[in-house]
Amino acid sequence: MEIYQTLDHFNFNSMGNGTFSQRYLISDKYWKKGYGPIFFYTGNEGDIWEFALNSGFITELAVQQKALVIFAEHRYYGKSLPFGKDSFNIPQISLLTVEQALADYSVMITELKQQLAATECPVIVFGGSYGGMLSVYMRLKYPNIVAGGLAASAPILSTAGMGDSRQFFRDVTNDFENIAPECRDAVRGAFHQLKELAENYSRIQSEFTLCKPPSSAQDIHQLYGLLRNAFTLMAMLDYPYSTHFMGNMPANPVKVACETMLSGSDLLGNLRNTAGIVYNATGVLTCFDLYNLYLECADPTGCGLGFDSLAWDYQACTEINLCFESNNVTDMFPPMAFTEKDRELYCSTRWAVVPRPHWLKTQFWGDALSTASNIIFSNGDLDPWANGGVRKSLSSSLIAVNTGGAHHLDLRGSHDDDPATVIAARKTEADIIEQWVKMERTRLQTLS
Amino acid sequence: MEIYQTLDHFNFNSMGNGTFSQRYLISDKYWKKGYGPIFFYTGNEGDIWEFALNSGFITELAVQQKALVIFAEHRYYGKSLPFGKDSFNIPQISLLTVEQALADYSVMITELKQQLAATECPVIVFGGSYGGMLSVYMRLKYPNIVAGGLAASAPILSTAGMGDSRQFFRDVTNDFENIAPECRDAVRGAFHQLKELAENYSRIQSEFTLCKPPSSAQDIHQLYGLLRNAFTLMAMLDYPYSTHFMGNMPANPVKVACETMLSGSDLLGNLRNTAGIVYNATGVLTCFDLYNLYLECADPTGCGLGFDSLAWDYQACTEINLCFESNNVTDMFPPMAFTEKDRELYCSTRWAVVPRPHWLKTQFWGDALSTASNIIFSNGDLDPWANGGVRKSLSSSLIAVNTGGAHHLDLRGSHDDDPATVIAARKTEADIIEQWVKMERTRLQTLS
Repeated sequence: MEIYQTLDHFNFNSMGNGTFSQRYLISDKYWKKGYGPIFFYTGNEGDIWEFALNSGFITELAVQQKALVIFAEHRYYGKSLPFGKDSFNIPQISLLTVEQALADYSVMITELKQQLAATECPVIVFGGSYGGMLSVYMRLKYPNIVAGGLAASAPILSTAGMGDSRQFFRDVTNDFENIAPECRDAVRGAFHQLKELAENYSRIQSEFTLCKPPSSAQDIHQLYGLLRNAFTLMAMLDYPYSTHFMGNMPANPVKVACETMLSGSDLLGNLRNTAGIVYNATGVLTCFDLYNLYLECADPTGCGLGFDSLAWDYQACTEINLCFESNNVTDMFPPMAFTEKDRELYCSTRWAVVPRPHWLKTQFWGDALSTASNIIFSNGDLDPWANGGVRKSLSSSLIAVNTGGAHHLDLRGSHDDDPATVIAARKTEADIIEQWVKMERTRLQTLS
Repeated sequence: MEIYQTLDHFNFNSMGNGTFSQRYLISDKYWKKGYGPIFFYTGNEGDIWEFALNSGFITELAVQQKALVIFAEHRYYGKSLPFGKDSFNIPQISLLTVEQALADYSVMITELKQQLAATECPVIVFGGSYGGMLSVYMRLKYPNIVAGGLAASAPILSTAGMGDSRQFFRDVTNDFENIAPECRDAVRGAFHQLKELAENYSRIQSEFTLCKPPSSAQDIHQLYGLLRNAFTLMAMLDYPYSTHFMGNMPANPVKVACETMLSGSDLLGNLRNTAGIVYNATGVLTCFDLYNLYLECADPTGCGLGFDSLAWDYQACTEINLCFESNNVTDMFPPMAFTEKDRELYCSTRWAVVPRPHWLKTQFWGDALSTASNIIFSNGDLDPWANGGVRKSLSSSLIAVNTGGAHHLDLRGSHDDDPATVIAARKTEADIIEQWVKMERTRLQTLS
C-alpha cells in the first residue's frame, strides 16, 4: 500500500512543498478490528520487505494479541523514493533525515488510524538496529501517537557519539575470540601476512582470487575494508540457523569462519575462504571484484550496496555518527582509523554536507532518558552493536532485555534452533507489550 | 550577546548550510556560578528586549534562587534575522518554523552550559503566550535539556486547532460584559450603527476621524478589523496598572474602554474614542490611517506591525492555527469569518504556502500530554487566550495555575496594584520551580 506523504515536514516553501508516495505493508489478518492494537514497524535502511520477511516475531505476537501489523518503508529506501532515481542527487537527497522519517511515521499512523476506524487502538512500534533507534525516538518525540516501543539492537548511544570508538571492532573480535583465541590470532596473523606482501600486487591478486590485480594503496585499503566487513557481517548475523538477511549466511557463521580460519596453515587462503562465506555464499563467483562487493562509505561497518547504500551513506554523513576505528590492538583488524575529521572530509566531498556530530545527542536525548517510558531495549551478547546501546534497565518502564543472540535475533520468527535466552526474551517482551496495550487503551478511551 | 546558530537544523544541504547570528540577553548578576539554575526565556514573536522588559518576575525569581538569566531571541524577530532584510522573502522566510526555534534554543543552551561551566546547572524555561507554547514544547521534546517550564498564557490547544473557533472573541466580549452588560451592548450597538452607514464613506471618515475616506468594501472590512483589534488588545493587556508592552495601555483598559463606550449617547464617537485608547494613547494622531495602524493577516487577533508582523503572519500561515471568528452572536463584533479555507487562500497567495492544520497537534501532542511532566500552565481569567490553553491540572507535575489576571500577568514584575491571585500564583510557581531545580540537580550529578 502507499500513502501520499508530505515531502518536507519542516519547510513549507522548499522543493518539498508536495507529496511523495511512501510504501507500507499491512496485514489485518489477525486484527480484532477497531479494538486490537497496531504493531507498527518503523522501517530502516532498506527495502521494507527485507525487514518484514525477517521479523516474524511481530506477526507471531499479532496472532497472540489480535493486532493489526504495519511495516512502513523509510523514505529514500526501497520503493519509497521521493524523487525517483533523482532522489540521490544533491539537493534532492537533503530531505533524508531522521526527523523527516519520524514525522512520516507519525503522520502515517494518524491518518491510517482515521481511515481504519482505529482511533482507540494502541500503537506499539517495533524496529531493529537503526529501525530500533527510530522506535526509541518515536516514543521520545511522539508519545501522543505511540504507547511503547521494542527497540531491538538499537545502538542509540554509539551512534550519538557516546562511547568508545574502538568498541565496535573490539566486540566483533570478541565474537571470534570466544569461539577460540586461536581463531582471533589466525585472523590477525593473516592480516599481518597480507601487510607483508606490501606492493606484491600479483601475489595479492592470486592469494585473494581478485578479478583484477590491485594497483594502488587505495586498492589495498579497499581490500582491507572488504575483508574486515566480512567479519563484521558474520558477527552481526551470527544466528543459530542459516538466514537470508543482508545476504546469505550459514548457521553459526562465526563458528564456520573460525573452522575455516583454522583449517590448515595457509592463512591467506583461509582468510580468502572466510571472506567467501559472505561474498561467495552461493559459490558462483570465480573471482572477487573489490569494488563491486564492498562499498567504502561513511559507515565503517558497511553501507551495503545499491541505492539503499547511497541513502545510508548520506545519513552517516549527516546525523548518524559512526566514527568507529579498528587499530589492531583492541581488535584483530588492520589499523583503519575513521575520525570525525576523516568523516568531515569525506562527507563534504561526497555529499556537500558537514556532519553535526553533537546533534543526535541533543535532539534524541543521549543517555538522559529518565523522563521517557515504555521502551524495551533488547540486545544480544553476540552482537557487536549491543554495547553501543542501553544494556541496563533505566527504570521500571525503560527495560533492558538480553536476547543472548546476534543482531536483533528476537525480532525473527521462532525457530527450533533458538537458544533459550531468546525464547525467554520474546516472552518478556510479549508480556510487557500486552501491559502497555492495556494501559494505552484506557488512556485513549479517556481522551475520546 | 550573540551566538552563531545553525541556519537549518533539519536539512544539511539547503541554503541553510551555514549559520546566522542569534541574539540573547544574559545576566549573571544573581547567579551562584556553576551551581545556581539557569532561567531561560524562550523568546517569541518580537524583539527580545520587549519580553525581557516585561517579564520582571523571572529576575525576581533569579534573585531568590541565585539563577543565571537568559532571554533568547526567536529567529526572524528583533535583530535575529538570518538573512538580514531579505529574511522575509520567499524562500528565505521558510527557515522560520517552531521546530527550528526549538532546535535553536536546545543548541544554544547546550553550548552556553559548556562555555559557562554550567553543565550541572538545571535549566528552567519560561515563556509567555507563543513563548509559553515554546516552553511547553521544549519540555516535551527536549527534557534532556530543560527540567521544567513555566508556560504563561500559552494557548497550546486553540493554536493546534482544538477547540471552538468562536471562543476567542467570545471571551474578549466577556471581559467587557463583565464590566457591565451595557458596555457590551454599546459596542454591539456602535458596530450596528457603523454597518448602517453602509457606503456613506464621507460620514464614516468623519465619525472615525480617518485620514482618508474609505472607498471600498475592503476599506470598511479593514476598519472593522482595526476596531475589533482594539478590543482584543485591551482584553489581553487588561493589567491593573499602566503598561508599555505591545503599545501603551492605561491601567485597567477594559474598564476605561467601558467608561468611554458609556460616556454619552454618541455611540460612534464613543467607539472611535475607545479605539483611540489603543491607537492614539499619546494623543498625537490627528487622524487614523486605516492601513498604518492595523495589518490584516493570518492571525485574526492581530499580527502587530513592522518586520515582526511579517514573521508572525508566516507562522500563522504554516504551523500556528488561528482560525478564530467573530459572528455577532456569541460575541459583540461584526461577523468576520476566518475559515481554514480563507486561511489557505490568503496564505498561498501571500507566502506560497499551504497551511497544515493538523500538524501542530501531531507534532506537539495536542492534549495527549500525560507522559509529559514538570510544566506549569498558568492562565488568567481576564485573558481571552486562557481558554485555548490548559486550565486544569493533568497530573501532579502538569499543573494549572490561575493568575486571575490578563495575558501572562504572572510573568511581570511585582507591582503594588497586583491582585492577590497573581501574588499567590507567583508564589506557587516559585515553589514548584525550586523543587524541579532540586530534582534536576540530583539527576545531572548522577549523569556526570
